[in-house]
Amino acid sequence: MADQLIIFDTTLRDGEQSPGASMTRDEKLRIARQLERLKVDVIEAGFAASSNGDFEAVQLIANTIKDSTICSLSRANDRDIARAAEALKGANRARIHTFIATSPLHMEKKLRMTPEQVLEQAKQSVRFARNLVGDIEFSPEDGYRSEVDFLCRVIEAVINEGATTINVPDTVGYAVPELYGNFIKTLRERIPNSDKAIWSVHCHNDLGMAVANSLAGVKIGGARQVECTINGLGERAGNCSLEEVVMAVKTRKDYFNLEVGIDTQHIVAASRMVSQTTGFVVQPNKAVVGANAFAHASGIHQDGVLKARDTYEIMRAEDVGWSANKIVLGKLSGRNAFKQRLQELGVQLDSETEINAAFARFKELADRKSEIFDEDILALVSEDSQNGESEQYGFVSLSQHSETGERPHAAIVFTVDGKEVQAQSDGNGPVDASLKAIESHVKSGAEMVLYSVNAISGSTESQGEVTVRLQNSGRVVNGVGADPDIVVASAKAYLHALNKLQNKVDRVAAQG
Amino acid sequence: MADQLIIFDTTLRDGEQSPGASMTRDEKLRIARQLERLKVDVIEAGFAASSNGDFEAVQLIANTIKDSTICSLSRANDRDIARAAEALKGANRARIHTFIATSPLHMEKKLRMTPEQVLEQAKQSVRFARNLVGDIEFSPEDGYRSEVDFLCRVIEAVINEGATTINVPDTVGYAVPELYGNFIKTLRERIPNSDKAIWSVHCHNDLGMAVANSLAGVKIGGARQVECTINGLGERAGNCSLEEVVMAVKTRKDYFNLEVGIDTQHIVAASRMVSQTTGFVVQPNKAVVGANAFAHASGIHQDGVLKARDTYEIMRAEDVGWSANKIVLGKLSGRNAFKQRLQELGVQLDSETEINAAFARFKELADRKSEIFDEDILALVSEDSQNGESEQYGFVSLSQHSETGERPHAAIVFTVDGKEVQAQSDGNGPVDASLKAIESHVKSGAEMVLYSVNAISGSTESQGEVTVRLQNSGRVVNGVGADPDIVVASAKAYLHALNKLQNKVDRVAAQG
Repeated sequence: MADQLIIFDTTLRDGEQSPGASMTRDEKLRIARQLERLKVDVIEAGFAASSNGDFEAVQLIANTIKDSTICSLSRANDRDIARAAEALKGANRARIHTFIATSPLHMEKKLRMTPEQVLEQAKQSVRFARNLVGDIEFSPEDGYRSEVDFLCRVIEAVINEGATTINVPDTVGYAVPELYGNFIKTLRERIPNSDKAIWSVHCHNDLGMAVANSLAGVKIGGARQVECTINGLGERAGNCSLEEVVMAVKTRKDYFNLEVGIDTQHIVAASRMVSQTTGFVVQPNKAVVGANAFAHASGIHQDGVLKARDTYEIMRAEDVGWSANKIVLGKLSGRNAFKQRLQELGVQLDSETEINAAFARFKELADRKSEIFDEDILALVSEDSQNGESEQYGFVSLSQHSETGERPHAAIVFTVDGKEVQAQSDGNGPVDASLKAIESHVKSGAEMVLYSVNAISGSTESQGEVTVRLQNSGRVVNGVGADPDIVVASAKAYLHALNKLQNKVDRVAAQG
Repeated sequence: MADQLIIFDTTLRDGEQSPGASMTRDEKLRIARQLERLKVDVIEAGFAASSNGDFEAVQLIANTIKDSTICSLSRANDRDIARAAEALKGANRARIHTFIATSPLHMEKKLRMTPEQVLEQAKQSVRFARNLVGDIEFSPEDGYRSEVDFLCRVIEAVINEGATTINVPDTVGYAVPELYGNFIKTLRERIPNSDKAIWSVHCHNDLGMAVANSLAGVKIGGARQVECTINGLGERAGNCSLEEVVMAVKTRKDYFNLEVGIDTQHIVAASRMVSQTTGFVVQPNKAVVGANAFAHASGIHQDGVLKARDTYEIMRAEDVGWSANKIVLGKLSGRNAFKQRLQELGVQLDSETEINAAFARFKELADRKSEIFDEDILALVSEDSQNGESEQYGFVSLSQHSETGERPHAAIVFTVDGKEVQAQSDGNGPVDASLKAIESHVKSGAEMVLYSVNAISGSTESQGEVTVRLQNSGRVVNGVGADPDIVVASAKAYLHALNKLQNKVDRVAAQG
């Protein structure tokens, strides 16, 4: 029988660490639910000791998700590990993932520790963790650039202390498939107790080879766990992308001969949810989840080329959930239909009050927009969950005008701690004027480093979904807003980003 | 001495074939100039026999570009090949790239030919081409899914007929690195005259492994040419991306030991030009050219993580041209400074009249926007070149208003064949109202399948660059428009797309 390949998703930890991709607790829970629906084996829910917010997110996910193992990252020290174990208490299956850098460069420049100190700390930490939780993963950070002899000593020692999974990160995305596969193979051959642990790969995409490297680690190296993220989200060029690695193993089963538990029909919905939540667009020519990935799924009818479908397609669009996006609701849809669709989309609103509020917003939207897509519903609920967190700033109303030859002008009403304020400004365009109006009152001093709009489901009749990325005092946040009026969506996104900037976070940076 | 790896760029052929990525002749020339500046060895400029427009584009590029070899694709028949040779007459170095499918599936379903017929036609075509041009590339389409024995016979025969480059496409993106590399190796070992040709790889990214597959073809298989596109543009999940494959070979010279002639400092500019021209966004977590690819280049200052730069970065952002995007021009910049910047950006305007027109637009923009970035200049010139082609529809002026509780409204003036018309409409938002106003007069019946906005250079003070993708009667076009007012930019993009829909094209579809 074919071996099982464990899919370890770190969208909520390594992915979220990407500048601008930070998520609220509720957003994380929603994504965790979608990952559970995907049948991801292990969900790395966060880095519990890095901040109170992260702790609460890990805890909430551990208490809610039942089918997947829930994992928290943790530096190799007792305090971090105890905190991770605490956050994971409610989990059906809990894993602590502890790490320490083992490459000469990282030990010297980042840790300022000798190799012997690193070895000692790794051992102690795994020993400590093993007393709290049975499932322990250990990562030698920047493992691929570490000296093999030293790395073998560290890994052998932590397996002796009880580590059950050994993950070898290519932290900086420097590997090529053949070398990385053989690196894992060498480690497994040289370490006497290597068969006592499951081996795992964690690759970054800086040279565009994260998926191929991961799979070489599996095929050549014998790893049986792949760490990955939805859409390849992650710092710099991102991580190995879940959808690509899973579809490669499934499509080339003749070569890999591995079982993967993922329910691929939920892939496209997961991709959209992550893109929508973080504001990170997916390019049209992205494999599996890009709008063009399947010629016939993007509403494009190619004449001539596609005489037979398998002439050019090796996967079926339906198998990854492309057909799932149907117009399901409209003006006449009732509360029950709405509630059921929410459930199908994996959105769980906790109280009847919340459902009623979301339904009221849905009816309001349906008055303005004839076809309501799944994305519309997710956007609407997403806004609700933002508002639910007793935000400082809230949108009330906007009036704007632009005319060729005149300077665009906007007047906005919004709430600050529940109190309405009015502001107005001109600007280079109506969006610029609206945001300047907000800023004239708020005076955040934040710098806008990214502004983008995606129409939800294609046409301008749809809602526009705006992402605003603000930077202030070294912090970067993305705000997202949706509305059929692009100027209003922009103002909402800006207020959302300001709210996020307000949530002070003192977070510890983790390994990549 | 290390071997040379030939970089064959097919952005203008395989890339442009991507639904929605079609480009005008002038846009193609501008990109060809940028590819020449990148020192691309071979530029596949188009598929001359597929349409008159393609013929003219190949001809124009062949007559203009001096440093790179110019190539035209061609089916394996005398008419196509003669047409390609004709278009390439003015080139310093010309190549004809002829192809015919060799996989059982493609021969049966697409060609409806027997293997013997395919073999005969391949031989005849190369023989015919060789009489016209000395540099002949042959591709067995869907080569990776072909039967090895048959493929060996075909390739041996075309090398005997004079083919100088043998390209083995993984047309459907089905390969994995080890298998693809060994496939090329087997072919080279089994074909007696294989050393008489340079071997080439052409990989698609459907499973996210195009770059790794290409490099396995080089490392394991001994190929010395890689076919690729800027941003990995191409049908479905796209082609092997030039920037990734080049930076992988450079960064891992210890492993590949190959020379690459590419001047990498022009990579980011090339990426932006292609993205801006086609309207295909580059996702932030795209390797090398994504906004987040280099942590410190995206205007983001990470505190803590980056103690030493090489702790997390294996390439330098400057080496691929990230620092090149400086604020170079403003309100007070003169005509000479503008002209010089145009030259540096690779934009060549042919007459003084054109330069004057572009400069006038520049001054008008500088009045509305204090900092002018390279992208602004490219957008501005791009619009000029659109207008230059005696377009049917042109933007004149727009007035729009939206206010919470009221229905957004827009009134627009635009030209139809030089004559001004007025139209107005309401809509779900001001953009929707503006486009509906245009449509109320034009009645194109086109369906909008994509709408997106990227602020050029980040903030809303910048111009917004809008991409509108329209579909009508099986044709898909992207229109692009830029303006500090997002509603105006949307109207321009819509008119641009309508103009493209007007340009009737009867094009033959080519191999992937």
